[in-house]
Amino acid sequence: MPTPEQITATVHRYLELVAKGAPDEVVELYASDATLEDPVGGEVHIGRQAIRGFYANIENVKGTTEIHTLRALGHEAAFYWQLSLDFGNGVGMSIEIISVMTFDADAKITSMKAYWGPDNVTNH
Amino acid sequence: MPTPEQITATVHRYLELVAKGAPDEVVELYASDATLEDPVGGEVHIGRQAIRGFYANIENVKGTTEIHTLRALGHEAAFYWQLSLDFGNGVGMSIEIISVMTFDADAKITSMKAYWGPDNVTNH
Repeated sequence: MPTPEQITATVHRYLELVAKGAPDEVVELYASDATLEDPVGGEVHIGRQAIRGFYANIENVKGTTEIHTLRALGHEAAFYWQLSLDFGNGVGMSIEIISVMTFDADAKITSMKAYWGPDNVTNH
Repeated sequence: MPTPEQITATVHRYLELVAKGAPDEVVELYASDATLEDPVGGEVHIGRQAIRGFYANIENVKGTTEIHTLRALGHEAAFYWQLSLDFGNGVGMSIEIISVMTFDADAKITSMKAYWGPDNVTNH
């Protein structure tokens, strides 16, 4: 089982890479047969190729992330965080997300689910 | 699939019954073959009898609950909330919890996971 410190490090790295808009590096954090459901209730992306396709959305986007609270327990993490995206010219958006991840023994992400909807998005 | 309104109603009823210290009524919100893991990383309680045993802890406890944020998506809910317990004589504790539930077609809880640890508990 991964340690809470390893899980916490993977989550922090994940948020850093999402903020940076670096899909190739984000995908490296996932196990090869991982699943991704973002938002929950939508399509489930299975495997690294599908997951890479999902993160194509963030390519070159500039953002910042902030963790409100993170819990690393067993082989899982749950965290409540904010993603703020800057589209230039003073236009941007913020999303408040509850995310749940599971991890393998190497602290690679085996599943990711993100709970958010239109009510959790602020345009500015 | 249950509607977001049905899921939201079950979550609100759940928090109300937990605050009231009413284990028999809480258990009624669960499907017969439901699972419960609280906190995540600990024992998984399977089935209503085991779940009833878990909630014996809250019998007659007086508390209050407050939802910081709730998301009902597909057949799931994720919510971040606070449980405050009053043990009398001005002694009590508060726990900040991220909970994830899944639901059946009748909006009964089929699984519950609560993400919290010692860092999320405040004694007062």
